Amino acid sequence: MARSTKKILPEKDIRVNGSLWLEHEGRRFFGPGPVQLLEGIEETGSISKAAKKMQMSYKKAWDIVNNLNTTANTPLVITATGGEKGGGSRISPEARDLIAGYKQLRQRFAAFLEEESKRVQKH
Amino acid sequence: MARSTKKILPEKDIRVNGSLWLEHEGRRFFGPGPVQLLEGIEETGSISKAAKKMQMSYKKAWDIVNNLNTTANTPLVITATGGEKGGGSRISPEARDLIAGYKQLRQRFAAFLEEESKRVQKH
Repeated sequence: MARSTKKILPEKDIRVNGSLWLEHEGRRFFGPGPVQLLEGIEETGSISKAAKKMQMSYKKAWDIVNNLNTTANTPLVITATGGEKGGGSRISPEARDLIAGYKQLRQRFAAFLEEESKRVQKH
Repeated sequence: MARSTKKILPEKDIRVNGSLWLEHEGRRFFGPGPVQLLEGIEETGSISKAAKKMQMSYKKAWDIVNNLNTTANTPLVITATGGEKGGGSRISPEARDLIAGYKQLRQRFAAFLEEESKRVQKH
């Protein structure tokens, strides 16, 4: 905040917060939701189980998976022949790399928010 | 993004985007909506006209105004005696300072997003 905002806001319990995502052609395709879904697929070996854990509809989970797979240059979620019930789903090494990169981005964002929160609290 | 995400995402039309707001005691109280409302009040001299311009309900606009006025140490919106219809509303110099500070914060956020977008595009 500008120096001139001094004393306008209470000194305590003020924070800058925000959310962050990746867009492709202006359309959101990667953020906290897809990351949670991918991690759930990795953990459960199943899109439907991962969706259930998040209380997300199966259709929405598939939409996210299809969107991820068509946006990325390489499949992020791999479903075994015979469909989900035939052999389950897993995430690719590229999906793991993308999650890791996103988490680093989140850390830099957290540092930005922390710095901006201190700035607001000071003024 | 991490170096290891190279080639996973298309090189073009990928961007990092996000939203940003201020919280007091964990509750959002200042962001793009309140800023637009305050600027509308400044322009029109009226909470109801400002709300109408934003296609926001009068009730929601008053909730935002009350929330701003109780959170800040000094009133941000001043309504003349007799209520809105008696003499209209205006924003205080402190509200203008807060808007200016928020816009500077947005600029730093835009720079952060730009830098992160370049980082993603490179890898």
